[in-house]
Amino acid sequence: MLTFDPSGKPELGIGMVGHGFMGAAHSHGWRSAPHFFDLPFRPKLVALAGRSPAALERAAAQYGWASTTTDWRSLLERDDIQVIDICAQGDAHAEIAIAALEAGKHVLCEKPLANTAAEAETMVAAAAAAAPHGVIARVGFTYRFVPAVWLAHDLIAQGRIGAIRQVRAQYLQDWLADDLTPMSWRLDKAQAGSGALGDIGAHIVDLAQFLTGEQITAVAGSLHTFVTHRPAASENARALGGRGAEDAPKLPVTVDDTAVFTARFEGGALGTFEATRMATGRRNVLRIEVNGTTGSVAFDYDDSSALQYYSAADDSLTQGFRRIHATGPDHPFAEAWWPAGHGLGYDHGFVHEIARFVDDIADGGSRTPTFSEGLHVQRVLEAVERSSADESRWSALAF
Amino acid sequence: MLTFDPSGKPELGIGMVGHGFMGAAHSHGWRSAPHFFDLPFRPKLVALAGRSPAALERAAAQYGWASTTTDWRSLLERDDIQVIDICAQGDAHAEIAIAALEAGKHVLCEKPLANTAAEAETMVAAAAAAAPHGVIARVGFTYRFVPAVWLAHDLIAQGRIGAIRQVRAQYLQDWLADDLTPMSWRLDKAQAGSGALGDIGAHIVDLAQFLTGEQITAVAGSLHTFVTHRPAASENARALGGRGAEDAPKLPVTVDDTAVFTARFEGGALGTFEATRMATGRRNVLRIEVNGTTGSVAFDYDDSSALQYYSAADDSLTQGFRRIHATGPDHPFAEAWWPAGHGLGYDHGFVHEIARFVDDIADGGSRTPTFSEGLHVQRVLEAVERSSADESRWSALAF
Amino acid sequence: MLTFDPSGKPELGIGMVGHGFMGAAHSHGWRSAPHFFDLPFRPKLVALAGRSPAALERAAAQYGWASTTTDWRSLLERDDIQVIDICAQGDAHAEIAIAALEAGKHVLCEKPLANTAAEAETMVAAAAAAAPHGVIARVGFTYRFVPAVWLAHDLIAQGRIGAIRQVRAQYLQDWLADDLTPMSWRLDKAQAGSGALGDIGAHIVDLAQFLTGEQITAVAGSLHTFVTHRPAASENARALGGRGAEDAPKLPVTVDDTAVFTARFEGGALGTFEATRMATGRRNVLRIEVNGTTGSVAFDYDDSSALQYYSAADDSLTQGFRRIHATGPDHPFAEAWWPAGHGLGYDHGFVHEIARFVDDIADGGSRTPTFSEGLHVQRVLEAVERSSADESRWSALAF
Amino acid sequence: MLTFDPSGKPELGIGMVGHGFMGAAHSHGWRSAPHFFDLPFRPKLVALAGRSPAALERAAAQYGWASTTTDWRSLLERDDIQVIDICAQGDAHAEIAIAALEAGKHVLCEKPLANTAAEAETMVAAAAAAAPHGVIARVGFTYRFVPAVWLAHDLIAQGRIGAIRQVRAQYLQDWLADDLTPMSWRLDKAQAGSGALGDIGAHIVDLAQFLTGEQITAVAGSLHTFVTHRPAASENARALGGRGAEDAPKLPVTVDDTAVFTARFEGGALGTFEATRMATGRRNVLRIEVNGTTGSVAFDYDDSSALQYYSAADDSLTQGFRRIHATGPDHPFAEAWWPAGHGLGYDHGFVHEIARFVDDIADGGSRTPTFSEGLHVQRVLEAVERSSADESRWSALAF
Repeated sequence: MLTFDPSGKPELGIGMVGHGFMGAAHSHGWRSAPHFFDLPFRPKLVALAGRSPAALERAAAQYGWASTTTDWRSLLERDDIQVIDICAQGDAHAEIAIAALEAGKHVLCEKPLANTAAEAETMVAAAAAAAPHGVIARVGFTYRFVPAVWLAHDLIAQGRIGAIRQVRAQYLQDWLADDLTPMSWRLDKAQAGSGALGDIGAHIVDLAQFLTGEQITAVAGSLHTFVTHRPAASENARALGGRGAEDAPKLPVTVDDTAVFTARFEGGALGTFEATRMATGRRNVLRIEVNGTTGSVAFDYDDSSALQYYSAADDSLTQGFRRIHATGPDHPFAEAWWPAGHGLGYDHGFVHEIARFVDDIADGGSRTPTFSEGLHVQRVLEAVERSSADESRWSALAF
Repeated sequence: MLTFDPSGKPELGIGMVGHGFMGAAHSHGWRSAPHFFDLPFRPKLVALAGRSPAALERAAAQYGWASTTTDWRSLLERDDIQVIDICAQGDAHAEIAIAALEAGKHVLCEKPLANTAAEAETMVAAAAAAAPHGVIARVGFTYRFVPAVWLAHDLIAQGRIGAIRQVRAQYLQDWLADDLTPMSWRLDKAQAGSGALGDIGAHIVDLAQFLTGEQITAVAGSLHTFVTHRPAASENARALGGRGAEDAPKLPVTVDDTAVFTARFEGGALGTFEATRMATGRRNVLRIEVNGTTGSVAFDYDDSSALQYYSAADDSLTQGFRRIHATGPDHPFAEAWWPAGHGLGYDHGFVHEIARFVDDIADGGSRTPTFSEGLHVQRVLEAVERSSADESRWSALAF
Repeated sequence: MLTFDPSGKPELGIGMVGHGFMGAAHSHGWRSAPHFFDLPFRPKLVALAGRSPAALERAAAQYGWASTTTDWRSLLERDDIQVIDICAQGDAHAEIAIAALEAGKHVLCEKPLANTAAEAETMVAAAAAAAPHGVIARVGFTYRFVPAVWLAHDLIAQGRIGAIRQVRAQYLQDWLADDLTPMSWRLDKAQAGSGALGDIGAHIVDLAQFLTGEQITAVAGSLHTFVTHRPAASENARALGGRGAEDAPKLPVTVDDTAVFTARFEGGALGTFEATRMATGRRNVLRIEVNGTTGSVAFDYDDSSALQYYSAADDSLTQGFRRIHATGPDHPFAEAWWPAGHGLGYDHGFVHEIARFVDDIADGGSRTPTFSEGLHVQRVLEAVERSSADESRWSALAF
Repeated sequence: MLTFDPSGKPELGIGMVGHGFMGAAHSHGWRSAPHFFDLPFRPKLVALAGRSPAALERAAAQYGWASTTTDWRSLLERDDIQVIDICAQGDAHAEIAIAALEAGKHVLCEKPLANTAAEAETMVAAAAAAAPHGVIARVGFTYRFVPAVWLAHDLIAQGRIGAIRQVRAQYLQDWLADDLTPMSWRLDKAQAGSGALGDIGAHIVDLAQFLTGEQITAVAGSLHTFVTHRPAASENARALGGRGAEDAPKLPVTVDDTAVFTARFEGGALGTFEATRMATGRRNVLRIEVNGTTGSVAFDYDDSSALQYYSAADDSLTQGFRRIHATGPDHPFAEAWWPAGHGLGYDHGFVHEIARFVDDIADGGSRTPTFSEGLHVQRVLEAVERSSADESRWSALAF
């Protein structure tokens, strides 16, 4: 464990927009990071912005925010706020991020960066304009910050698996497998941009590019919606076990619930990707494997503390995938936490993400994931949509 | 364990063509099946056909065949042979099978049924012509006969996972990951038809259709050859650890070493498939998962005695994938073998395949896999090739 | 996720003694619990006590404590402190706990409750004397609060595995496998009481009794010290990768580094236990399995979000251990956290432990683990020591 | 795969006594070994001996034996029989083995070698007397011959895990967990010698000594019988799913159904052992792990093709247990079988055991497991019984 004394560090005021699932996770990150990492600033949870006053008040009190506002623009005018953390829905990302960057605020924006590549481009432009002023813009691909994933990245960067040949990635969920799971904003294209593709497919696209250090240049794929109409959400959803009522009016689902695609990488590698919310029994299974010429790494979120690593350089009697419990003293992020072998959870990724973001602010910021990386993911997603609309034909990425 | 007395059963004379890896496996099947299953006949390993006399003699002695011939046609003329078992290369399947069927011999033909759908069609026609005479024709998709796979089929047929929505299948090998793995007939399109696609992709296509009971109607996919030239096989391959010499002349690889594709099933399901010989560290990993509306099954050949099964009907506290060790007294093929929990191996699948084939011969034969099923697999493979040549566009199966 | 508004809840002042590994973990628990659970109080980290002023100041700043003291007794005199959280070494537990209880402070005491059963008895007496005044005393067996473990307890309590027959428990670590791991207080009997037995054996003894609901009545076992002398800790331990210097003076290890024992439970069950710090490659592997007449549960900390559950009531085709990812909406503690399938880590156990402790304070306190339970664990440990000293003969617990 | 021509090899006539589960497995071994291994002899299944003529005839026909006899002594008089394979009940081993050895026949005897150490000693003496005449005597500890187990042995012998410190072994079955599993000879001390201890405990004792190369010198342990009376076997057992009738007369079980013990090895290592037939849900789970000073190996029969291996010599970023699929070209027994990654089953162990036994006969025989090793296992088992009868006190082995 690290030991340090954060007293005397300057404050860093945070304003956050949005207080759903991601708002809770980011709040935890802001609260916990300074207690585990020797940050250059002391983050202060200054203000939380939202739309519904009652829910907003409750969330601010629960998550530890000092004040609230229903006008997110007011956050930009406060001198005690240096960071805008965007946990709002995807359709709001661009407007908030651009305004915040123009106001000189550092921005941490949830993924996917935007609902369209066009929006994302305007965000990248705003980030580029702000950068010379020392303003940092990052996008929250939190799975990068799982220690085992980061270790995979490092091993690949060290050349431990040779040249990359294949990537296979799956992000499997099952919360839509039930026909009565009700309609929500995540199933509405206007609000969410896309379905499984942008929500969870974005994660594995980002991971694939992060791990390999190579960009995807073309894709061929298909989107599919198995359940095209769903009941409206019920007032008494809890009594129904989260389901909609059987006799509720049915609303149209306007996004994909499964996305499958093949990708070519700039270095010649081939990748397969599947993102689905229909894989009965798979609550939240993110798997990614990278095969190189001399080794492989494989990560499975179901065993999230571990990385599987194979080296063809091992002697012939003992070649095999090693399960590395990525909590040893030399492993990424490990020095902040518990002794080797004591696992971390989902929320620790946000702590890591935020710790690095704060370091970026302090030292000028060469860390990732950048808005440009977020844009490239968006371009991959759009290329998948184009390919799907064009009978799965290969679609090159527009640059 | 079954107990029975095979004495008094009539003999069934077998003639086999080919004595490579598959020839060894089939020979074991013929030798062992009558000792574990109460077969209606006593198989007799009458004659083995091959091309190289020396190797043929050695193989016949090793595998237990009573005689040999370098002219496979001579097998068709023998009255003491009722079955022709075809373990030759793919380009020879059609000619041998058709001649055998026309000669009234039952035929068991290794997979893939043929190197092209056109060839396979002629074989199906020959099988159809022979069928009224009680002549049986089957194709050797041996992985069906792994008890855990068969159990998956049975659970799906019983409706235990509801309607099928998704299939994801991978067959990963790594024997070509090394650039110096030498050229062989399996890498020559003229002899092998295709590469990973036909050799191992055929298995997962067959399994997907067998498990779901649904045919694939269209595919979109890509073939890729990562290593396009390989050294000629060396005389002293063993000294080189099976590799070719670095300075050996390089020969062109004319087949794919990786095939990836998406498939639509007749019932509306969506499947993803990957067959590769380049997945460093994955010696022989066959995985297939089927997601239905109310449950899922998942099989991984790395845990070949087990089936993973998830039922959404389990109570909310205890839902989860069950690892069923498919060796219990009620499980497929289990009564022939050892007490529950004692595993089976790769070769047991051939014993089961042959036991069922012999039953077919005795009772007129409604069992599978039929030549028609083999043809359908071939059509899927060809559609993948068409799609790959057409920029991965969806290609409907020709019927 | 729970949503609630903690504002308006009364404060609960905490004083903590000790700031090592456990101090860090408990501090995280106190900071985080009110943001995830709807606690009846708002915990306030009032004061941290320790011995070394410099380290104490640093720890207080890092962990978020408002003040410090090198005199733990001063905590007892403060009206703004209602809880004493004891994270000091084992030899200090009794004195602090008894004084705190006598001062009317609620006490949360790290495990093992004390270094001897005699000490633990005085603590139980103090807790009993304080209880009528509404004073709560609990011991920190944190592994109970892993959701999958709690679920195992609940399933057993519901009768899902029938009558208990066997328990097998292992707690395997490897931090002493290296002969050069240096001497520390944990290896000194005067300070630590015992070695693997009390440190990690205590956890599996507690879990066994918690899960089965049955007390251990007799044990037979052996303690072993493989490495009897170790180098003194080095000033530049970090440079040595945490090892002692090869030429450092060797100090005697006075505790066991491996404890193995068999136990009888009050209901007739038989248990096997192993606690070791010498299992090369096993960083922190806690496994416990309970076999009942009609089912079994098995937990492995290497897969800490999951419980394995077997029911003999499943039909014969589908019997098998189910891997239950204990993060579903109905699972213990799950409503506080993330959607199903998103894992928790080591520190979440402390959040749960503290949330329940605070509930206990509010409602009078029927929750566990009580000091009496902690005493019983201590008696089991002492009986193991007696048995070990008596050639492994069965030793009944003294009551 | 090996290629060879067995023709021209001399015949080796086998006489087998007993035709139960082990008889079936050994018959398969005799039939299959010559087709996969280049044996110096061609085994011939000459005669099968048994007690019940009808069952004997059926078994001989099913398993491929050329003749039968109800008088096992007649086998010793036949010149066409050179080997006596003893698959009879434990109480018959000594008499048959000694007579066979005295008659100059090679003997392969199922484990445990005998029902008592006293009997085993007479067998060892007979083997010693026969050895100068080139007569081979071996005992059938078949789990040694699982390739992954053999590999573990080899890695330890190569010093890959350093000096041995700990062994932990479990053999878990559940076929007696049901109170209505009927009485059988295996539950009768007079016929079986002991229960779980001798039947499955013998396997893990042998494996522990085989893997470590060290003998057990003392044990402390306990035997337990959870279900002391069981129904008589029913005529229509199959209709009852193998259970006894609820109203059947109850017969006393006179053996243990669970054995737990700790062992000391000659080199100072400590081992824990559990053998049980009551572990609900564990059909046939054999696990053994050996921890050395610089590494560990772990084998789990539930993943029987794989060995887990940990080396502390790996660099700190990539230390972890490797899953070695022990089917690669350099792995034990692998050259006889299928390409890497194609698994083997329970029966392959018998093929390996028999292939080595035949090699022993040809070359004079330095292979194992010898009768002396079988005797030592027996002495361990008896020491466990002594310790159990003496309140679990340490009991040194008698030599």
